[in-house]
Amino acid sequence: MKKYVYSFNEGSKDMRSLLGGKGANLAEMTKIGMPVPQGFTVTTESCNKYYEDGGVIDEEVVNQIYEKLSELEQKSGKKFGDKEDPLLVSVRSGAVFSMPGMMDTILNLGLNDETVQALAKLTENERFAYDSYRRFIQMFGDVVMEIPKAKFDKIFDGQKEKSGAQFDVDLTAEDLKEVIAGYKELVKEEKGEDFPQDPQVQLMEAVKAVFRSWNNDRAILYRNLNGIDHSLGTAVNVQSMVFGNMGKTSGTGVAFSRNPANGENKLYGEFLVNAQGEDVVAGIRTPQPISEMAEAFPEVYAEFAGIAKSLEEHYKDMQDMEFTVERGKLYMLQTRNGKRTALSAVKVAVDMVKEGLIDRETAVMRVEPEQIDQLLHPCFDAATIAEKEVIAEGLPASPGAASGKIYFTAAEAADAAANGEKTILVRQETSPEDLAGMVAAEGILTQRGGMTSHAAVVARGMGKCCVAGCSQISVDEDEKKVTIDGKVYGEGDYISLDGTSGKVYSGEIEAVDPEFSEEFKTLMSWADEIRSLQIRTNADNPRDAAKAVEFGAEGIGLCRTEHMFFEDERIPAIRQMILAESTEEREVALAKLLPFQKEDFKGIYKVMGERPVTIRLLDPPLHEFLPQTEEEMKVVAENTGSSMEKLERIAEELHEFNPMLGHRGCRLAITYPEIARMQTRAIIEAALEVGQEQGIEIKPEIMIPLTCEEAELAAVKKTVLDTVKTVEEETGKKITCSVGTMIEIPRAAVTADEIAEEAEFFSFGTNDLTQMTFGFSRDDTGKLIKEYVDKNIFEKDPFQTLDQKGVGFLVQTAAKLGRQTRPDIKMGICGEHGGDPASIEFCHRTGLNYVSCSPFRVPIARLAAARAAISNK
Amino acid sequence: MKKYVYSFNEGSKDMRSLLGGKGANLAEMTKIGMPVPQGFTVTTESCNKYYEDGGVIDEEVVNQIYEKLSELEQKSGKKFGDKEDPLLVSVRSGAVFSMPGMMDTILNLGLNDETVQALAKLTENERFAYDSYRRFIQMFGDVVMEIPKAKFDKIFDGQKEKSGAQFDVDLTAEDLKEVIAGYKELVKEEKGEDFPQDPQVQLMEAVKAVFRSWNNDRAILYRNLNGIDHSLGTAVNVQSMVFGNMGKTSGTGVAFSRNPANGENKLYGEFLVNAQGEDVVAGIRTPQPISEMAEAFPEVYAEFAGIAKSLEEHYKDMQDMEFTVERGKLYMLQTRNGKRTALSAVKVAVDMVKEGLIDRETAVMRVEPEQIDQLLHPCFDAATIAEKEVIAEGLPASPGAASGKIYFTAAEAADAAANGEKTILVRQETSPEDLAGMVAAEGILTQRGGMTSHAAVVARGMGKCCVAGCSQISVDEDEKKVTIDGKVYGEGDYISLDGTSGKVYSGEIEAVDPEFSEEFKTLMSWADEIRSLQIRTNADNPRDAAKAVEFGAEGIGLCRTEHMFFEDERIPAIRQMILAESTEEREVALAKLLPFQKEDFKGIYKVMGERPVTIRLLDPPLHEFLPQTEEEMKVVAENTGSSMEKLERIAEELHEFNPMLGHRGCRLAITYPEIARMQTRAIIEAALEVGQEQGIEIKPEIMIPLTCEEAELAAVKKTVLDTVKTVEEETGKKITCSVGTMIEIPRAAVTADEIAEEAEFFSFGTNDLTQMTFGFSRDDTGKLIKEYVDKNIFEKDPFQTLDQKGVGFLVQTAAKLGRQTRPDIKMGICGEHGGDPASIEFCHRTGLNYVSCSPFRVPIARLAAARAAISNK
Repeated sequence: MKKYVYSFNEGSKDMRSLLGGKGANLAEMTKIGMPVPQGFTVTTESCNKYYEDGGVIDEEVVNQIYEKLSELEQKSGKKFGDKEDPLLVSVRSGAVFSMPGMMDTILNLGLNDETVQALAKLTENERFAYDSYRRFIQMFGDVVMEIPKAKFDKIFDGQKEKSGAQFDVDLTAEDLKEVIAGYKELVKEEKGEDFPQDPQVQLMEAVKAVFRSWNNDRAILYRNLNGIDHSLGTAVNVQSMVFGNMGKTSGTGVAFSRNPANGENKLYGEFLVNAQGEDVVAGIRTPQPISEMAEAFPEVYAEFAGIAKSLEEHYKDMQDMEFTVERGKLYMLQTRNGKRTALSAVKVAVDMVKEGLIDRETAVMRVEPEQIDQLLHPCFDAATIAEKEVIAEGLPASPGAASGKIYFTAAEAADAAANGEKTILVRQETSPEDLAGMVAAEGILTQRGGMTSHAAVVARGMGKCCVAGCSQISVDEDEKKVTIDGKVYGEGDYISLDGTSGKVYSGEIEAVDPEFSEEFKTLMSWADEIRSLQIRTNADNPRDAAKAVEFGAEGIGLCRTEHMFFEDERIPAIRQMILAESTEEREVALAKLLPFQKEDFKGIYKVMGERPVTIRLLDPPLHEFLPQTEEEMKVVAENTGSSMEKLERIAEELHEFNPMLGHRGCRLAITYPEIARMQTRAIIEAALEVGQEQGIEIKPEIMIPLTCEEAELAAVKKTVLDTVKTVEEETGKKITCSVGTMIEIPRAAVTADEIAEEAEFFSFGTNDLTQMTFGFSRDDTGKLIKEYVDKNIFEKDPFQTLDQKGVGFLVQTAAKLGRQTRPDIKMGICGEHGGDPASIEFCHRTGLNYVSCSPFRVPIARLAAARAAISNK
Repeated sequence: MKKYVYSFNEGSKDMRSLLGGKGANLAEMTKIGMPVPQGFTVTTESCNKYYEDGGVIDEEVVNQIYEKLSELEQKSGKKFGDKEDPLLVSVRSGAVFSMPGMMDTILNLGLNDETVQALAKLTENERFAYDSYRRFIQMFGDVVMEIPKAKFDKIFDGQKEKSGAQFDVDLTAEDLKEVIAGYKELVKEEKGEDFPQDPQVQLMEAVKAVFRSWNNDRAILYRNLNGIDHSLGTAVNVQSMVFGNMGKTSGTGVAFSRNPANGENKLYGEFLVNAQGEDVVAGIRTPQPISEMAEAFPEVYAEFAGIAKSLEEHYKDMQDMEFTVERGKLYMLQTRNGKRTALSAVKVAVDMVKEGLIDRETAVMRVEPEQIDQLLHPCFDAATIAEKEVIAEGLPASPGAASGKIYFTAAEAADAAANGEKTILVRQETSPEDLAGMVAAEGILTQRGGMTSHAAVVARGMGKCCVAGCSQISVDEDEKKVTIDGKVYGEGDYISLDGTSGKVYSGEIEAVDPEFSEEFKTLMSWADEIRSLQIRTNADNPRDAAKAVEFGAEGIGLCRTEHMFFEDERIPAIRQMILAESTEEREVALAKLLPFQKEDFKGIYKVMGERPVTIRLLDPPLHEFLPQTEEEMKVVAENTGSSMEKLERIAEELHEFNPMLGHRGCRLAITYPEIARMQTRAIIEAALEVGQEQGIEIKPEIMIPLTCEEAELAAVKKTVLDTVKTVEEETGKKITCSVGTMIEIPRAAVTADEIAEEAEFFSFGTNDLTQMTFGFSRDDTGKLIKEYVDKNIFEKDPFQTLDQKGVGFLVQTAAKLGRQTRPDIKMGICGEHGGDPASIEFCHRTGLNYVSCSPFRVPIARLAAARAAISNK
């Protein structure tokens, strides 16, 4: 016969899927001799059977419950319904994965018109007993009998009015008896029967109610949101009640075995004398720090401290515990691994290794990579922002905190910053022309664009706080105002952004700068020992490169050359090139760009030394470099000596309906090989010069973007290698360089065997690959993807976490095909996903050589790579 | 020892890859006893060996050539260099695949200062002999010795001037002797040696020159353009010269065994008495029709007619033959399968089946599907357009011919057409709003857009002539003018388009309407018996549907609902829907659209009867329905009672950077399920009503576009099926309908196993799938793709012929995964590729159930499907 009900002493922490998390931990504590109020757990299988049987509780389950109940009565020496020493129990749900507050709990079950009197006597507190009874009826009436809570409230409030009571506590025992009479009448009216006085009936109805609550609306929603399987079912824990409010030798508390905020190895928590758990929650009285318990109950405190230590040693992790002291006796009601801040997680993990509790790998697995992002950026003090009003909420596009004056154009933001002001750049969306303003601002707020919009990508690259796609705000750049929820903010008004949460606050809030603890450095060094994936960075300039190296980057996986083109000195030459109507004219303009590009690369090489640097040839469509407004057009026309007509004609010719799928990437190098020639020359000459200056050997990796076909790559590669040869001949020097390609178009992925004939390395550009694999433009569909995630169509935003099923299939196909042709082909990823832990795990499994991410994600990637190595051992 | 040289009597037609096409046919004719001037063929392997050896002719090859030469001398009774009866030969290239005019030929080899006199005596024509000699020196000097042709011309022209000769023929034998002296001097000057007098030396040098010519620039280009493998090499044919210019009993001619223009079973060709082949080409004398040869040489004619019939019977195909009559004796110089028009191809194939020469499958394989396109559309008379000036050339976007007055807006074109004018709509590009004008016009010419641009797709759908992406023209719609090569054409000027060639002519040219022959109908009926693929059509209205059924369509594979929305009566309601700010407002607008949609579908069902009809739910982004100009905006604002501000705000909100990857397809149905509800209701109600009226059962197929994820499809499918159920309940009737999806996003293809859980059928939308697989927007990259094809990066435009390697991989992956989940899943293709023969062959191999193409491609698809079935037996 199947076992449906387990006493606490029959289970263990490994039976979580059968007993639920709470039940398994209660069993485990019982097993290791902790003082746990006894009880039993009805399994998740019983719950599933209940549903299979069409909402009927199986007779076998009923019988087993009664059996265990009778055992419990024997153990406790109390009896259900006993007039002297009645057994009272709590009935709580307990799912496999924690679903806090989603399902129902019933306390004080076993109370009836008779046992309430016994309770009054035992607690020497009649008011408490009747209040418990009245609460029990209300809870039971609501949860089990499904009588609207409001109807109970009406009776209760009526009594308060009648008695002239201002607060609930002002009601006397006598008042409460009247309330109870009213409640019982209500039950009779609503249900046509009396409130059940038989504790066994109460129990069975309560168990069924908990089963039912598994499928209430909010529980279903919660599981949908958290990806919890609906077929798991919930267990039900029936546990003897203990009372912390039986006088001055009783009490209740919650505590962590270490400090969850900073990791200090010291009990941390709160304690209330003569109180029950709900009093702490209700905030009626102010709890004392747990340390003060040592004075109030020295012995109990010592016992509790010992238990906390034992539990830590047993679970090998910091514990979050609930306990009650009933007349000087300590009872443990719950233990679980404690939630903690990043700071605490790192310290606890490293300390526990030092204490011999866990090994390094376990320590690495204890810190969530995403969590440490908190440690890398400025942040607002939690207490401070708790008091501030959130005026809008956008996408948490780039973490950190920033506060400053609103400016609506890049130029004005840059000017203000030059005058020492802290500024926030507020735009409908940003474009490459806003770069200078973005560099100067403390943070960026945009109305449109998703997690991989220009603003988001660039801000993350710079480690700058950014809230993007904040559709609640309405930015009017011409009028220099932003309207948020009807209120208008103008230039110079203060605003504060939390890029980690996506929240926007009005006014100024001070942000706190990060500092790396010794424990952090230790943990990261362990991660580095463990991981096999290399971590590179996406960096386009020496500043970002230096930051990334400081954060532990081992090379550059993506150096975008186009960002360099937007700087003031260069854009005229770029535009001259675009306006050129012959190869010769174009080469004249390119010759002007060559020294700039060369200096760019020299700066980067100087920072990176012999670390590998992958430089991508020009990628965006040329129209991105043209002025967007008529005024700017006029200026450019004057400066380049072109007619407005010509400028307009060329802009018109370059216009594209879908620039994402247009004339860009290596397609530019096919049409204008002279651009690739200039860039290659700059890359090679810079490498040779810095190499000579520093006495090192620089081996550039030249990356050709947007390949879709082998012949296309072959053509551009030839242009590149011919140029390399020319430079070698001119300088009389030899250089080792490799030529590879981005795999960012689905066709490149599925023809990677052919592409690998030419490519010496693959870099998966998973941003564009995601766009084309899904048919989602990241500039346009931020709102839509949010809708998809909200409607549970997508589990996650595929631009944040690599879609392993679709995009991942293409990456794996490409990796397999690429290795078929070239077994030692080097492969990495350089999309935004390179900094996402789940995606990094995928890259590890796929056998890539490296991931490349923005500088501020490098530590996260190092940790995630180590965890991936451990998980996939 | 390897055999490098074959006498004509040693080979056969099956040795094409070794002997080349010409050599194999000469051998075959020899084998079956035709009178062929004897000779031998140096194999393609010799050519390849020549290249492998670094441009040196192998000694073994040389020895075998001399051996065969000596056999030839014995057979012919003539000797190389003989002073009385010299052997003269032609040396001709002969590749495996015909490369007309790409490689070199040398005639009269064996002539020298002595044999020329013998030739003069034998032909009794001194002038002819010396002219032959001078031509030989010139040809040899040019081809073998690589002396610039211009230098020979200078000497020749000098002699003409000196002799006062107006034409070449005015030069006497004596004059020619002076030319020869000058030529020999030139050779000596240029090469430092005398022109070779030894025929054996001449021969070996000529053979090498032919080998070299395999790799001349134009031959390489030709092979690139025609996809011929560069490693094949060429054979060299050495053949005894015969002379058709040895007096009145000699002659030369070319003839087809049947009429290549109309297929009539009668010799067709030309004949010249006392002439050599080159005289025909030079056009100095006018040849006689071949029929007149019967009078001039009755016996020879009878012999030739018999040979022609034998060759046809032997090759089982219409032959294209060259022959020479030397002093009353007939010599066959060449035979090959004759090129023919579509009309002829169809008639010859069907006639030959009736004659018992070939079977039906062979007949079907004899007609190229693309060819019959000519038979379905109006066309210009070939002779007429030969005289017309081509003023521009664009993409042959939709076949046919059209002539009419230029109009620059759809409205004006429609008005003019209503007044009985023939019009050509000339636009930068077309948009859905131009539909009425496109329907009214005879043809469409656009400056921008590729083979799958809006203009091209819609025009093909209507079977209307269209030249698209004609970048040589500059259209100014505001000024109502189009500038072509500096010349300005205005509204009302006549212009003519050939949509089959992409050519644009000025002025009016009359087009000839097509008529279907009995043979055509017969051939198509055979094709229908053979094919296993079903052929459906893409049709959005009853007119197109009827046309397609007339052409043999078996159902509708794609009925786009959005085209219906642009009509004048409907667009206001659509706009009202877009401007709606709540579901309720939107439903009010949709209620107005419902009767229209229902009528649309009823019209189509009435035409299609019980044939399957797949209707796709709304696909384009909503902004496509908004007015584009400020003026139109104002009108809409007035009509809808919306403020301009609101209109602008909504247009701004709907604006997308990359609409192709934006909020469209089933994404609309996710955000606005009420649209899908209205459309489903229209589809179902229409089907029930027409079914009842006609006493038939209509089973609609509802297709959900742009799916990228199973959950997305499931959500929209639920909306659809819920609506079906509602309509069933309302009407009390039951309907059988199926719900499927487009597979047009790469992710849908690679997750097709999951998608098939929901989808009852797949329709591969290979237009969009190609766009996203390649990352090429078809609206933007027409020019770029042309560049890629020109540069040999792409073999073919992937929007015209399905890219089997990349897109095909995804289609096959999806087909395999889809069948894993749902073994009987119905699959078809409805992109532009559905009408492309090579793509249809791919669909057959992939095991799809049907292809769907525009009405005018239906016959082509039927034929192509039959050929695919035969080829893949």
